[in-house]
Amino acid sequence: MINYPNKKKNYKVPTLSTSSKHNTRHRGISLEEDINVSNQYYLSHDQAVIYKKPTPVQIVKVDYPARNKAKIVEAYYKVPSTTDYNGLYRGKYIDFEAKECKTKRFPFINIHEHQINHLDAIQRHGGIAFIIIAFTTLNEVYLIDASYIVEAYRFSSVKHLDYEDIKKHGHLIRQGYIPRLEYLKVVDEIYFKEAE
Amino acid sequence: MINYPNKKKNYKVPTLSTSSKHNTRHRGISLEEDINVSNQYYLSHDQAVIYKKPTPVQIVKVDYPARNKAKIVEAYYKVPSTTDYNGLYRGKYIDFEAKECKTKRFPFINIHEHQINHLDAIQRHGGIAFIIIAFTTLNEVYLIDASYIVEAYRFSSVKHLDYEDIKKHGHLIRQGYIPRLEYLKVVDEIYFKEAE
Repeated sequence: MINYPNKKKNYKVPTLSTSSKHNTRHRGISLEEDINVSNQYYLSHDQAVIYKKPTPVQIVKVDYPARNKAKIVEAYYKVPSTTDYNGLYRGKYIDFEAKECKTKRFPFINIHEHQINHLDAIQRHGGIAFIIIAFTTLNEVYLIDASYIVEAYRFSSVKHLDYEDIKKHGHLIRQGYIPRLEYLKVVDEIYFKEAE
Repeated sequence: MINYPNKKKNYKVPTLSTSSKHNTRHRGISLEEDINVSNQYYLSHDQAVIYKKPTPVQIVKVDYPARNKAKIVEAYYKVPSTTDYNGLYRGKYIDFEAKECKTKRFPFINIHEHQINHLDAIQRHGGIAFIIIAFTTLNEVYLIDASYIVEAYRFSSVKHLDYEDIKKHGHLIRQGYIPRLEYLKVVDEIYFKEAE
């Protein structure tokens, strides 16, 4: 059986907490991996049901080297129609894209126009939509509401957002061990404030 | 560019409506295709944002026969962790699986246990969860709330549901031309009744 990416793992809790938002742990570890393990944590603790969507692939040719064993021998990556992550939290539909920036700039070329339109549609239909942006050299990860990105993408004269824009309009996500990226705490603060 | 499965198409409206729930049109056309074009209709009319998730694939080897052209040359199908479809409708998270039955029986072997657990989790977290079951020889398609399937799967002495069970506890979906499967009308009736 193929190893199952969303399988729950038993995380070992480190005996000494060296967690700090200024540590260098995040460097070299992908944002995607951090979000995935955080989602597994939220799922196993029955706090949210959020998954990364599979990478869209156009399958062209499949071989059957053995009975019951299909081997894909020709396939191509497709342009994703939507965002990477969606799911359900506190009764609300949640949808987001995650992006890493190596510099202090988030260029709009890193996001597809139909992803912008998708995030806009989610908000229009009453869902929660945002982007998680990691500045890998700074080891800072921000959650920024989709409306800000959508407006900047469509109407800004410059084709990027600077670190300062994101720091000002976004929300810093605390990094820890379990979950690694506590982004739902930020979601609570932004989207569920009045419910509390 | 690879042909994009979720691309909006311009449907031609037939000049004569020969739509009938007892026609034979559905035979030979897959349920998946019917749901996909219905979702495209709902999306293009800004009524809902519902997509089929990509088929989960474990990519092992990628070749680059030309610059900027990645060719996947070894990959394997993975067991899906969740259901085939999810999205947002009238402010609510929607999640469902679609299954075809060639006989008048829906065997539980056709659905994975973790999909049952997923549907259960969706309902527990305030989402709408159901299964769409098509009886292809009868040309009838039913929407059945997940709670009924989850309970039968876990507690029933028999490992299947009969057509009669589904007819009694499910809701017949009207088939037309545009959209082909008007399943959101059934969703309105079941899940949004009191809101109207």
